Amino acid sequence: MSILRAGIENTAGASVAGGVVALRFDGETLWALDQRRLPFEEVELPLCRASEVAEAIRGLSIRGAPLIGVAAAYGIALELIHDPSPESLERATTILRAARPTAVNLAWAVDRVHAAAVDGGAAAALAQARAIHESELAASAAMATAGADALAGVTRVMTHCNTGALAAPGAGTALGVIAELARRDQLEYVLATETRPLLQGARLTAYELSKLGIAHELIVDSAAAGLIAGGAVGAVIVGCDRVAANGDVANKVGTYGLALAARAAGIEFIVAGPTSTIDPACASGSEIVIEERDPGEVRQAHGQLLTLPGTACRNPAFDVTPAELVTGLVTERGVVRAPTRESVLALLPG
Amino acid sequence: MSILRAGIENTAGASVAGGVVALRFDGETLWALDQRRLPFEEVELPLCRASEVAEAIRGLSIRGAPLIGVAAAYGIALELIHDPSPESLERATTILRAARPTAVNLAWAVDRVHAAAVDGGAAAALAQARAIHESELAASAAMATAGADALAGVTRVMTHCNTGALAAPGAGTALGVIAELARRDQLEYVLATETRPLLQGARLTAYELSKLGIAHELIVDSAAAGLIAGGAVGAVIVGCDRVAANGDVANKVGTYGLALAARAAGIEFIVAGPTSTIDPACASGSEIVIEERDPGEVRQAHGQLLTLPGTACRNPAFDVTPAELVTGLVTERGVVRAPTRESVLALLPG
Repeated sequence: MSILRAGIENTAGASVAGGVVALRFDGETLWALDQRRLPFEEVELPLCRASEVAEAIRGLSIRGAPLIGVAAAYGIALELIHDPSPESLERATTILRAARPTAVNLAWAVDRVHAAAVDGGAAAALAQARAIHESELAASAAMATAGADALAGVTRVMTHCNTGALAAPGAGTALGVIAELARRDQLEYVLATETRPLLQGARLTAYELSKLGIAHELIVDSAAAGLIAGGAVGAVIVGCDRVAANGDVANKVGTYGLALAARAAGIEFIVAGPTSTIDPACASGSEIVIEERDPGEVRQAHGQLLTLPGTACRNPAFDVTPAELVTGLVTERGVVRAPTRESVLALLPG
Repeated sequence: MSILRAGIENTAGASVAGGVVALRFDGETLWALDQRRLPFEEVELPLCRASEVAEAIRGLSIRGAPLIGVAAAYGIALELIHDPSPESLERATTILRAARPTAVNLAWAVDRVHAAAVDGGAAAALAQARAIHESELAASAAMATAGADALAGVTRVMTHCNTGALAAPGAGTALGVIAELARRDQLEYVLATETRPLLQGARLTAYELSKLGIAHELIVDSAAAGLIAGGAVGAVIVGCDRVAANGDVANKVGTYGLALAARAAGIEFIVAGPTSTIDPACASGSEIVIEERDPGEVRQAHGQLLTLPGTACRNPAFDVTPAELVTGLVTERGVVRAPTRESVLALLPG
């Protein structure tokens, strides 16, 4: 693959043959590919304590809602291996829950491992973390199949941010669906938005698409709407950080604009995410707290200052797309068309 | 002003007191503030030949539809001072017309100076260039008044790209309106989009707003739609590169997405530009050729590589906003609400 010839080296032993492994647990240490340094360097971070996992999540070395949840689950288990006390469990739970406020998988995974640990200690916590990991791997595979089935006839797609193997265990969410379309030999090309300010599209999605051998072009975020209007793609497919009970979707900032453009052009707007991303306690998008990140992220791009240093910036990390703009919600339990409160909640057990 | 304390120096003698002078003619040389180097350096380029003006336009040292037109007008006059032959006139006309294909002011200004030169030679060409310059200065002032009158009650606005003194002689188009709102003490703040890939918002608009002492925050382009939906602003106001006879607007890529978001939120979407931007020969936006610029602009930001060097990119410089999304077209001849072919053409003489 040309991306390897471009000088990328696997410097820390992660398996990249056939794809990227963003997170792996070797029995003692959680190894996380440091996503801040991609695509220019492939370096794994060794994480042994909950605080280290929380810092890696907060700093975006580990990102993507499903991947964050799995990492946080291991984070509690790791902490209990070092210190199995109830205080240690509570401390780890608190710092990991707080690492990213918007990602519901994080709270969901942390709560499940916490409950297992209360009953069965470190061993039960680790078993629960492994179970969450396995379950997310299976979910990626199921979403890829369901999403590709839903996009029969679509040959050109646009995606936003990064939702592949770097965002979720396995093939990912939206990018997993795209990889499956390519595997079915149905895909002409992908338009990938660069995804300012942290450039997950330019840095991570372009990298994953290259590794997968999928034809793609990178665009600036604001080129998306005009290209959609011009008929460049037949579907927009994105991931999600949180889905409200009514089907409203919180996802990477810029998602809402893509949804408006897709609606205006009459094309599919597909949201892919595991059902762990659905928050039944959140009635609608208006209840979702939008994380405001460091304004300094806007002032620079990959370390390069873009404006005068004193410039004030606003930096919402997410936006909310109303359910009415979503033509399909792809989950590991199948696809919900034009999601409503009833159809979204029907995806959840109980 | 803090921006001056941040280390910006006026290195080449342009007057910046009370605002920016992007272009000035000293009788022999056209001096253009090199906008590629702002806000970090203030350097004027001396331009003496049509080819130099064309290169400065092509390379975006001179940008903004009205400013391009004025620069091109002087470019022909300068060339004729050096070589007053008919061949020289045709050569200068050809290279200047081709410097930016989408900007209609460019063709308009070039054609007017060409016609003057055919009849009256270099002196007539220069007189015509000066007349265009004066007329654009008056147009900026008239647009500022008309636009501010149209936005009575609006206290917070969003703008895209750069449309101020760096884009047009005088106070500019959309940013001229914003400056007038501030002068009337009506303005709480401005949200300025960074405007990838060339960052005219981050580099130029933030710089101009600082010089004008107007409170502002910079945002990434894709944050605009969510902030508009959240009620952050009461109006979006942008410039235009070309207005079709039916009111469709070609403007900096990203404009269409802002218009969709403004419509969805029920707020004003104002387009400001001199009537020289209206192209009566262009029936609708579908006839406008969208300039595709160098893909390398997408791969980097202010010189910093953002993705692997081999990444394919698509780089449309403009998009088209349908007239139905425009709530007001602000020109030096007044404001047209909900523009139609009839009301747009009524702005033109004859």
